Amino acid sequence: MRFGVIGTGTVGRTLAEKLVELGHEVTLGSRTKDNAAANDWADRAGPYGHAGTFAEAAEFGEVVLNATSGTVSLQALEAAGAERLAGKVLIDVSNPLVFSATGELSLEPVNTDSVGEQIQRAHPDAFVVKALNTVTAPVMVDPARIPGEHNLFIAGEDVEAKAKVRAVLEEFGWPAGAIIDLGGIEAARGMEMMMPFWITMMRHLGHADFNYSIRTAN
Amino acid sequence: MRFGVIGTGTVGRTLAEKLVELGHEVTLGSRTKDNAAANDWADRAGPYGHAGTFAEAAEFGEVVLNATSGTVSLQALEAAGAERLAGKVLIDVSNPLVFSATGELSLEPVNTDSVGEQIQRAHPDAFVVKALNTVTAPVMVDPARIPGEHNLFIAGEDVEAKAKVRAVLEEFGWPAGAIIDLGGIEAARGMEMMMPFWITMMRHLGHADFNYSIRTAN
Repeated sequence: MRFGVIGTGTVGRTLAEKLVELGHEVTLGSRTKDNAAANDWADRAGPYGHAGTFAEAAEFGEVVLNATSGTVSLQALEAAGAERLAGKVLIDVSNPLVFSATGELSLEPVNTDSVGEQIQRAHPDAFVVKALNTVTAPVMVDPARIPGEHNLFIAGEDVEAKAKVRAVLEEFGWPAGAIIDLGGIEAARGMEMMMPFWITMMRHLGHADFNYSIRTAN
Repeated sequence: MRFGVIGTGTVGRTLAEKLVELGHEVTLGSRTKDNAAANDWADRAGPYGHAGTFAEAAEFGEVVLNATSGTVSLQALEAAGAERLAGKVLIDVSNPLVFSATGELSLEPVNTDSVGEQIQRAHPDAFVVKALNTVTAPVMVDPARIPGEHNLFIAGEDVEAKAKVRAVLEEFGWPAGAIIDLGGIEAARGMEMMMPFWITMMRHLGHADFNYSIRTAN
């Protein structure tokens, strides 16, 4: 399948690399045409990995992943072009982290809105699915790094789109039973708002190789 | 030991009941003198359970638990009286949930502040420890309701106060290794901001008998 990945940071490159490894063809999209990180990545990725602009990545992908920072995702996806996202599954991996000058973390948007919802409102013809934002990049594409059962969450309005995302996540190595569908895109709020806890836990552990396992009585 | 529990809702009554069961003496404090829920509870609780005002509960307790809604906790603790809380461990169990007329959930405070921090600022002479706000009341006092390993989080400025709170939590049945100290009271932000996810998960499961287990690679 053809994927477009919007964003050339660690998350975007990690996802793009895994998709190519799995035999998919990927365009890694950056804000500018001659992004060094994207070109380097494409050079190393072989014939199935390409570098391009946000618009080229969106055009290329049958499925598009938003791997930009949540604070600039709307701009990035506007640059990608609504017409190139229409009718496609758009996996939103972002978190809207804002670090103050003193290192204090906050989220924007938060509480009564989320990046997932913002993107779905701005791109009503795309099928937005929030996923993967609750784990660090290496865990996204290699859940077995963390032993035992642990969970991933998805949220979105379209059932078929969520089924397609599940299939991608299963290719990444997530067991079907580990993926919990939290309902409509509004659930992205709770998923993004776990981030302050996640950062605190990462600082506590001294690394990011951890995840949530939901334990239940029944 | 003598405990004061501020708040007569499900959380307050559940905590008070467990403490009496464990052999402690408890005053369950309500806003008004003749609160039916508190009086009923005290009648059933036997000689170690008492009903009183917020102030009487705070005065009585060597350790005080705030089990009011996070949106009214500052008012409740003001009524309890700063001088009655000074020098004491104050366990803050609250979440600042606001439900709109349409049932939409938000938190207030959120993001750059938390109830835990608000309380610590308002009561600088009390030793505030955030704890127990990430699980439903029956699980707080009976973690074995949920099989397997799962975690509880604490945060606060004072190491000795946190050690006292750990001891209480262990009496409730939490294994020492299950209690994760997230650091200073600012970590209450992340703990409170898990609530939207928690509510979504509760709706997904159809019950509240669940908890987080933090799985790590090392």
